[in-house]
Amino acid sequence: MSDSLPTLFKSFSKEGIVRREALLEGLKESGILEDDPRVKALFKALNGSSSEISEAQFQILSDQAPGLFEQALTDNLAIPDFRAFTAELTDIFDEVNTIRMGKLPTYIPQLERVDPEKFAMSVCTVDGQRFSVGDCDDYFCVQSCSKPVTYCLALEEQGEDVVHSYVGREPSGKTFNELTLNAKGLPHNPMINAGAIMCGALIKKGGAASDRFDYVMEKWKTAAGGQKIGFNNAVYLSERQTADRNFALGYFMREKKAFPPDAELLDVLEFYFQCCSIETTTKSMAIIASTLANGGVCPLTGVQVFSPGHVKNCLSLMLSCGMYDFSGEFAFTVGIPAKSGVSGAIMLAIPNVGGITVWSPLLDELGNSVRGVEFCKRLVSRFKFHTFDTMLGLGDDRIDPRRKR
Amino acid sequence: MSDSLPTLFKSFSKEGIVRREALLEGLKESGILEDDPRVKALFKALNGSSSEISEAQFQILSDQAPGLFEQALTDNLAIPDFRAFTAELTDIFDEVNTIRMGKLPTYIPQLERVDPEKFAMSVCTVDGQRFSVGDCDDYFCVQSCSKPVTYCLALEEQGEDVVHSYVGREPSGKTFNELTLNAKGLPHNPMINAGAIMCGALIKKGGAASDRFDYVMEKWKTAAGGQKIGFNNAVYLSERQTADRNFALGYFMREKKAFPPDAELLDVLEFYFQCCSIETTTKSMAIIASTLANGGVCPLTGVQVFSPGHVKNCLSLMLSCGMYDFSGEFAFTVGIPAKSGVSGAIMLAIPNVGGITVWSPLLDELGNSVRGVEFCKRLVSRFKFHTFDTMLGLGDDRIDPRRKR
Amino acid sequence: MSDSLPTLFKSFSKEGIVRREALLEGLKESGILEDDPRVKALFKALNGSSSEISEAQFQILSDQAPGLFEQALTDNLAIPDFRAFTAELTDIFDEVNTIRMGKLPTYIPQLERVDPEKFAMSVCTVDGQRFSVGDCDDYFCVQSCSKPVTYCLALEEQGEDVVHSYVGREPSGKTFNELTLNAKGLPHNPMINAGAIMCGALIKKGGAASDRFDYVMEKWKTAAGGQKIGFNNAVYLSERQTADRNFALGYFMREKKAFPPDAELLDVLEFYFQCCSIETTTKSMAIIASTLANGGVCPLTGVQVFSPGHVKNCLSLMLSCGMYDFSGEFAFTVGIPAKSGVSGAIMLAIPNVGGITVWSPLLDELGNSVRGVEFCKRLVSRFKFHTFDTMLGLGDDRIDPRRKR
Amino acid sequence: MSDSLPTLFKSFSKEGIVRREALLEGLKESGILEDDPRVKALFKALNGSSSEISEAQFQILSDQAPGLFEQALTDNLAIPDFRAFTAELTDIFDEVNTIRMGKLPTYIPQLERVDPEKFAMSVCTVDGQRFSVGDCDDYFCVQSCSKPVTYCLALEEQGEDVVHSYVGREPSGKTFNELTLNAKGLPHNPMINAGAIMCGALIKKGGAASDRFDYVMEKWKTAAGGQKIGFNNAVYLSERQTADRNFALGYFMREKKAFPPDAELLDVLEFYFQCCSIETTTKSMAIIASTLANGGVCPLTGVQVFSPGHVKNCLSLMLSCGMYDFSGEFAFTVGIPAKSGVSGAIMLAIPNVGGITVWSPLLDELGNSVRGVEFCKRLVSRFKFHTFDTMLGLGDDRIDPRRKR
Repeated sequence: MSDSLPTLFKSFSKEGIVRREALLEGLKESGILEDDPRVKALFKALNGSSSEISEAQFQILSDQAPGLFEQALTDNLAIPDFRAFTAELTDIFDEVNTIRMGKLPTYIPQLERVDPEKFAMSVCTVDGQRFSVGDCDDYFCVQSCSKPVTYCLALEEQGEDVVHSYVGREPSGKTFNELTLNAKGLPHNPMINAGAIMCGALIKKGGAASDRFDYVMEKWKTAAGGQKIGFNNAVYLSERQTADRNFALGYFMREKKAFPPDAELLDVLEFYFQCCSIETTTKSMAIIASTLANGGVCPLTGVQVFSPGHVKNCLSLMLSCGMYDFSGEFAFTVGIPAKSGVSGAIMLAIPNVGGITVWSPLLDELGNSVRGVEFCKRLVSRFKFHTFDTMLGLGDDRIDPRRKR
Repeated sequence: MSDSLPTLFKSFSKEGIVRREALLEGLKESGILEDDPRVKALFKALNGSSSEISEAQFQILSDQAPGLFEQALTDNLAIPDFRAFTAELTDIFDEVNTIRMGKLPTYIPQLERVDPEKFAMSVCTVDGQRFSVGDCDDYFCVQSCSKPVTYCLALEEQGEDVVHSYVGREPSGKTFNELTLNAKGLPHNPMINAGAIMCGALIKKGGAASDRFDYVMEKWKTAAGGQKIGFNNAVYLSERQTADRNFALGYFMREKKAFPPDAELLDVLEFYFQCCSIETTTKSMAIIASTLANGGVCPLTGVQVFSPGHVKNCLSLMLSCGMYDFSGEFAFTVGIPAKSGVSGAIMLAIPNVGGITVWSPLLDELGNSVRGVEFCKRLVSRFKFHTFDTMLGLGDDRIDPRRKR
Repeated sequence: MSDSLPTLFKSFSKEGIVRREALLEGLKESGILEDDPRVKALFKALNGSSSEISEAQFQILSDQAPGLFEQALTDNLAIPDFRAFTAELTDIFDEVNTIRMGKLPTYIPQLERVDPEKFAMSVCTVDGQRFSVGDCDDYFCVQSCSKPVTYCLALEEQGEDVVHSYVGREPSGKTFNELTLNAKGLPHNPMINAGAIMCGALIKKGGAASDRFDYVMEKWKTAAGGQKIGFNNAVYLSERQTADRNFALGYFMREKKAFPPDAELLDVLEFYFQCCSIETTTKSMAIIASTLANGGVCPLTGVQVFSPGHVKNCLSLMLSCGMYDFSGEFAFTVGIPAKSGVSGAIMLAIPNVGGITVWSPLLDELGNSVRGVEFCKRLVSRFKFHTFDTMLGLGDDRIDPRRKR
Repeated sequence: MSDSLPTLFKSFSKEGIVRREALLEGLKESGILEDDPRVKALFKALNGSSSEISEAQFQILSDQAPGLFEQALTDNLAIPDFRAFTAELTDIFDEVNTIRMGKLPTYIPQLERVDPEKFAMSVCTVDGQRFSVGDCDDYFCVQSCSKPVTYCLALEEQGEDVVHSYVGREPSGKTFNELTLNAKGLPHNPMINAGAIMCGALIKKGGAASDRFDYVMEKWKTAAGGQKIGFNNAVYLSERQTADRNFALGYFMREKKAFPPDAELLDVLEFYFQCCSIETTTKSMAIIASTLANGGVCPLTGVQVFSPGHVKNCLSLMLSCGMYDFSGEFAFTVGIPAKSGVSGAIMLAIPNVGGITVWSPLLDELGNSVRGVEFCKRLVSRFKFHTFDTMLGLGDDRIDPRRKR
């Protein structure tokens, strides 16, 4: 590739000189942001350089971010025309922003007090191209969006066979079954409360509560490429206090001897409430989603947070079970592995493309963000992101942003 | 590409001559079979040619199957190393062939009388590469494998909106719900009996029974690239006579006013039994499956049998609902859109790769072919064919046969 | 008892003479009607007698209806003060008559065309005291009120063990189970459609359709003390034509091999529709109800139509299952064995007291007559007719009409 | 009645003298026991009297238990031939005593440690005639047999309308519904755990825990005619510790806002566990059952413990819901209001006749005492105690012990 560096220099240069501004602009357009750990040295060098860059300096700059520097400037990242892509996303965002339907959840005051107008969207591709719009620096509780991470952590530690001896892996079907277990006496899958409570019981069993939670937070941070992850203690305390259904589920599972032998019910439930009370921004959660879309490797750091096989399992269940009672319809019409949370967040993992997070607190009657679901529907009406859109021969005029135009 | 023809000639030639046998061998290895309509002229020319072929003759031969001739001989088809691929499939077939479990279905005598030892597997890629092993010329009834075709035909004729105003598109959940409808009073999805009965009612409404069935048979034949499709009248008569559950379903749906206004219940049910009684071989059904895997275009003829969007819908529902009560587990562990039939057939559509059909009459207690399900499990243990195996970065040692090695 | 005849004569006589009119009035007040077969000879003698009756003539009259003559005139029948009792019933009838709620059933035109204002009530005690008010000579279809009779006939012929190897004897619980069978694969009980269809299949198995129906009609007539029982052929034809749910049930049961070996589904269903299409008046149905209340012996004829043990079984199931989804609530609040029909009839069997039939065609959303249910509620608010009102020590001011005041 | 005392004296006397032993024997045969509070003075007088009693002394003795003295000695109590009746009961007891099937409950150690051979039966008629056989002085926990009392206490305090705005009054149908509520979001009825927990929450709301329990114990004692009622603290502690299902139920109900506004879940559950841990003997529980059979008036004291209307409600629900999942079958075949407890007790209330309690710890798979259920079945095969056995005209040879022979 370094063979092509002179060519790249030429394409940017005018009379043997490349303007620093043009490089900064080029990087920005490609979606490579200044806080990306991979380009720390590059930006340091760029910021220290003169405004006119010679071919030798160009080579030195390229060496600060080997490969990425060239790929970004030659439109060779996951989504080649990232500017066009984000323009489309912004369009959708603006359209959806006009929607004023839905209700705030009322079961805990902390969720009820959120500003219902909040709306944010962030994307991060499997090559770490990023873009955000709206209230993307606001923190919100992850709630059920924690379930895929909890499931992956249980898989990492215990393996698929052990985990699925405690929790099923199929859609649960009817709502009225929520409180019951499947035919084998297990929670139906890790994407519903009972299953997530169970997965949590499998993480760092026997460890101190503080150590277990530290471990989870550390993993969240790693999956988010080092971005800050917070914790909302007020939400945690409220969740714990108003968690009648989860206590009911917990006691019911304990009665059925569904838990691992040494699980302490109250510890297990408190751990679950803590995971739900983790706070983040759409920016950070989009990176986590992209880690899932990228087979478990964080695009910003290259760290293998989860093994690919476990991510595969997670995406399968997000596709079939991630959107509460809307899961079947969502799998059919949107067809992207997703997880919804009662805080109004939806986390989408588009395999080999990237992660998208939408956040808007007003919910429909099934508990999904009204704007979030609408965003997803419009997303697949413009882009070939449905699981089965990957087929060749789709003669429609929707965009496949993976392809160079 | 014709620029590369001289290079191709050189790679096959020895002293300016290519041996006809080498070409035949090369085509065979690529999976392009003599009865492929695309190579009819080519084989005619080859069979008429001398055993030693000059560069000029080579060019003429290439013109008989433009593109395909070169792609086949340069390993540029969907599965480049087709010989290695089929060797693996044969291995799996031989392993699975040793299994002697399961039972013949007993509800009609025609299925009970089938030789339980029968076993066949056929594959057809989206580039029309084909391979078969076992009893691949034996006819069997398609039974529930007709459901994806019936659904696609209903979509083609009525469009998604109309079809799904009569039938749902989500997994049905529990077995005991089989006889009931979903919350909207519709059959849960087109992959279960009630839904397939409903889809049938939407095809050529008001037409004569004979014309309707002719139409369906014609479509089956087209989807199979012109291969012969049969009809087992004894099965049809038996189905009609012993169809208590389907009559119950039909009457129940009629009571709920679920049918289109002009549907005649007995006609609708007879049409359904006829679709189930269509006969084919694994060879032909693999081509039909590849038509689905290829976005609706038959690889052997290039005919667009179904539109890509409808095929997408069909694959979504095959993934979530195609394997009876095993669907959820199958989606998780195998992850390939599939449809099972009580005759012991399983039809797999691997998007952008091809179709595979396995047939072995002995069934497990959920009604799926024992060998068929085991074949599918072993298939994904060797090949990256799971829907979410497509992710980059999967560091396992399973084969991605789409890639050149 | 004949010892007391002189005393009776004295109580009616004035100067050694009893006025015929006084006797006729006394009999009428006691509820013994002229068309009662037990008093045919008595009324003939009375009508032929002079208006002034001597003690010798009095003795002769008494001999025409031995026992009954004295019992009636000395207030020694099941409900001693029958006049007061019927006055209360008439009060309730008049109150309930003002209700104008409910809807006509729409599933067949014959039921939809009935005059919604119709309202009738008839009572017949276990001693044959009778009273009617309203449209008590109008014929209506018995519909589900046929189920207790069909059940009793099946019991008479096959015995309890055989019958209950084909049909359960417990409430079915949820509505949504209507179409399914109980855990043993049987209809839940004889008071729901599936169970009544099954009981019908057990009556005169193998007999000609005409003979089987003749047999049932004959039994109805006998249970009604010889009163005319009709058949509404238009209803039958409509039922047969629009019986989607019953066909669904029938096919479902046949699929589950629930029927006796030689049952022909269509015959069984037609038999069921015929039983539903039997026509009668409240007058006649009250006699049938009193036959049940009287342990199977028709009060007007003394004929043992059903054996007491079978009647006991029937009353048990009427109490727990006779009022569709309102059965549990009805058993709690009214506490009288009852059966409701979609024609708006409710048949009540008050053990040891008598039978009451109410008919008013407007139905509530559970399919019970609005006025009928209200009549029952008010009945037990005035009379101690609840199954558990029989306890001693009930210090309330409701009436026990069984007791002499 | 005192008119007949001379006649009674004559029937017992020989030469103007009645032997004291004959009187004692006569009272014993009538079922009037020495610890009966109604005959305390009588027995004191008898014990102080000479062995030969004159007519004057006879009159004085009679005055010590006015009415009862005569009724007992003239066979004018609820079951006239009490000796024959108890002989039959003893026969049944001996037959059933040979049964060795069933299992001890294992969910708490205290129940598992009970001697499985224990077997006792006690009866108390509505006139206070008593008889016991077997381990009738052994204490056992009442468990679910507490539910009818708890329900009656809630009714007494809050009235029917309030109570049934918190709990339903119909059979729950299917087992799998146990954990869910009825269509109105209420527990199905007071005879299942959820409903009994709810009824407990309605008793002495806001009172101190100790006062509330004192109140209940006092009522139990009153209903038992002053007999000792105990409390098994070890069972209580075990119940509280292993009550996963009840905690699940409690939390589920709280989530559904089913409880009265001021209910504290833990208090409510502890109260429920305490009620289940009340201890008694068959002797005492038979008196309580007779209080129910007697319309709420304790036969031994004449105290109106519960009002008749509430007892009626209680008996209705015992009949339809008292025997767990066997309730429907029990209502059909036995037809006596009953309540079963997991300690192996069954309490029967035969309206106007009396109460029977059977206790044998080995349970069938539905949780009812094996010997207990068999005892009930044989009871109604000998005696006309089925709710609908009261009909006239039952020509069978079973005994109606209410009638003088």
